[in-house]
Amino acid sequence: MTKLIIISHPEIENSTVQSFLLEGLNQAKLDVDVVKLDRGYDIKELQQKILQANEIFFQFPLYWYHAPSSLGKFQEDVFTNKFVAKIRDANAAKLKKLSLIVSFSDKLADFQAGTKIGHSLSELLSPYQSFATSLGFLFEPTFVIPQFQYQTEDAQQLLLINYLQKISRSNQSFLKRGEWLLKMLETQQQDELLIDYLRQQLAEYETLDQTIKDLKDGQE
Amino acid sequence: MTKLIIISHPEIENSTVQSFLLEGLNQAKLDVDVVKLDRGYDIKELQQKILQANEIFFQFPLYWYHAPSSLGKFQEDVFTNKFVAKIRDANAAKLKKLSLIVSFSDKLADFQAGTKIGHSLSELLSPYQSFATSLGFLFEPTFVIPQFQYQTEDAQQLLLINYLQKISRSNQSFLKRGEWLLKMLETQQQDELLIDYLRQQLAEYETLDQTIKDLKDGQE
Repeated sequence: MTKLIIISHPEIENSTVQSFLLEGLNQAKLDVDVVKLDRGYDIKELQQKILQANEIFFQFPLYWYHAPSSLGKFQEDVFTNKFVAKIRDANAAKLKKLSLIVSFSDKLADFQAGTKIGHSLSELLSPYQSFATSLGFLFEPTFVIPQFQYQTEDAQQLLLINYLQKISRSNQSFLKRGEWLLKMLETQQQDELLIDYLRQQLAEYETLDQTIKDLKDGQE
Repeated sequence: MTKLIIISHPEIENSTVQSFLLEGLNQAKLDVDVVKLDRGYDIKELQQKILQANEIFFQFPLYWYHAPSSLGKFQEDVFTNKFVAKIRDANAAKLKKLSLIVSFSDKLADFQAGTKIGHSLSELLSPYQSFATSLGFLFEPTFVIPQFQYQTEDAQQLLLINYLQKISRSNQSFLKRGEWLLKMLETQQQDELLIDYLRQQLAEYETLDQTIKDLKDGQE
């Protein structure tokens, strides 16, 4: 299972949220390939990576309600007619997933009719959905990061957990994801309060899960 | 009344539709300023042009369901925090108009739910609408050019007329626009059939217009 994160950001090193996510990826030692478009890339090499990946993430801040220009340049450079045919064939043989990881400084509530922005995030991001579906990718829900700089440290930690789960195992059951998360937090020696809270929550879920199984067994 | 057309296209000289529109603009001798982003630009000079313009057009082909990357780069370069404040003030004092002129090779019918694209043009272009409204511009309807290369010569000629009308006097009455158009076609020595057709149509409208006025006078 090969995962590829393609980051579009003209100043990654000056971005608190991008540095935070990259640091989290490093610590979690997830098996993902990260490409930073604004550092330059070899077109053929990147085409090869995309062909080999099972899951692709476009990660970027919202600049004027779309991705920074380096993502558009990447689409123009990499998705040539010849490569488009290859990707469509690859997707027809074995479906690849594509999703977005988008950060922005506006409030989530600003993305609706009646505001200055006036559109939902789904509308604004529709060009990327059309890109994905027209190439035969399965377009998955966007991971949204609003106003990172105003979040508390705990909220940021939870965000990181959700981000790492999004990247690593989006299709696992709630229980499995919780167990995975607990292990990760423990090895990372994260906030004890958070770990305790999660441990309690998981125990409750396990009880619930068992009760449901018992009920089902009783019905048979 | 200053008009500014900002073209985003990496290969204008190889584009039949862009060459055709530019040639039409030249022939019609309209008083507009044209900036070709991919030829490079001076940021301060361009900011000045935008501040002085009453009406701005972003003209581009649809690349992967959004504008080419040079338009995004232009937004990043030119719309700095300082300039954004200036533009908002300028728009608050006297509203500027902003609209899009968009060409694409897909059929118009491909822009809807149930297709591979799966979205309307309005949805796909919503980031530019949000850009316009968040800066206080009046966002006007998009001028759409589908499948230019498959159009007959007559259809292309009509398209040019509509394009020039869009640029030059979008708020005139139908009758005034017709008269203007007729004069333009005559000076350009265009297709006689088209001129005759238009002359007849205008005569009919004038009669109708007069009838309506008479009826109104009778009611008073």
